[in-house]
Amino acid sequence: MADMPEDQPYTLRPVGHVESELKERRGAPRQGREGAPEAWVVIDAPYADAMDGLIVGDDAVLITWLHQGDRSTLKVYPRGNRQLPLTGIFATRAPDRPNPLGLHRVTILEIDGLRLRVSPLEAIHGTPVVDLKPILPDSLDA
Amino acid sequence: MADMPEDQPYTLRPVGHVESELKERRGAPRQGREGAPEAWVVIDAPYADAMDGLIVGDDAVLITWLHQGDRSTLKVYPRGNRQLPLTGIFATRAPDRPNPLGLHRVTILEIDGLRLRVSPLEAIHGTPVVDLKPILPDSLDA
Repeated sequence: MADMPEDQPYTLRPVGHVESELKERRGAPRQGREGAPEAWVVIDAPYADAMDGLIVGDDAVLITWLHQGDRSTLKVYPRGNRQLPLTGIFATRAPDRPNPLGLHRVTILEIDGLRLRVSPLEAIHGTPVVDLKPILPDSLDA
Repeated sequence: MADMPEDQPYTLRPVGHVESELKERRGAPRQGREGAPEAWVVIDAPYADAMDGLIVGDDAVLITWLHQGDRSTLKVYPRGNRQLPLTGIFATRAPDRPNPLGLHRVTILEIDGLRLRVSPLEAIHGTPVVDLKPILPDSLDA
């Protein structure tokens, strides 16, 4: 776009990463509410100021970059179940998609400097974090 | 990351764009539920297959790239109100943030080929679309 630096029009800047006991995608829960553990979100120092105002107990939407996603996938069997019809990825939450962004509704359990303990989180260890947004009080969405 | 092409590790690929009566950020509602209009989401032809399975009446989370966002902003006055304390952008929904991703919960009103009529949507005309995800039936989040 004309109003963005031309050298990086759509380039995400990781602002942190996930530290989790989940080490690989195989075996990780498909969704946070399916038994995902607590995890730490570690924010990079240059973004410390952006954390001001976060409150323990609040819910937030964490946006990650699902770095192991296959970006060429346009259709999947939902949840890997071949009894279900092949479905376009815009109608699924599959991590294999053109822009492998993960949305995770989490509760902030602890704030320790640049580290946020959150739950539940199905993203694996090392997953880059690109944003964190509050849940709006007048809505149930993210 | 080692498992991503090195030439574009975190580069989003727009999959479509917004067509809206809202032509500029000034004057646009801050959130969809604050009087935002219907709009069209126009998917690019290479991603047509990814739309299979979308259903009129369903709610979805649209992810946009807020291309006019200022990526150097780390704190803002919430809603532009200088009576409120300066707040880190991870605790606000401000479009000025390191990765200006917009999350919009919308209802799919109509599907016409590559075009989706959705409501409400506060994103302005021309906003790039990077993903669309279903709302999970067992959750209220996005």
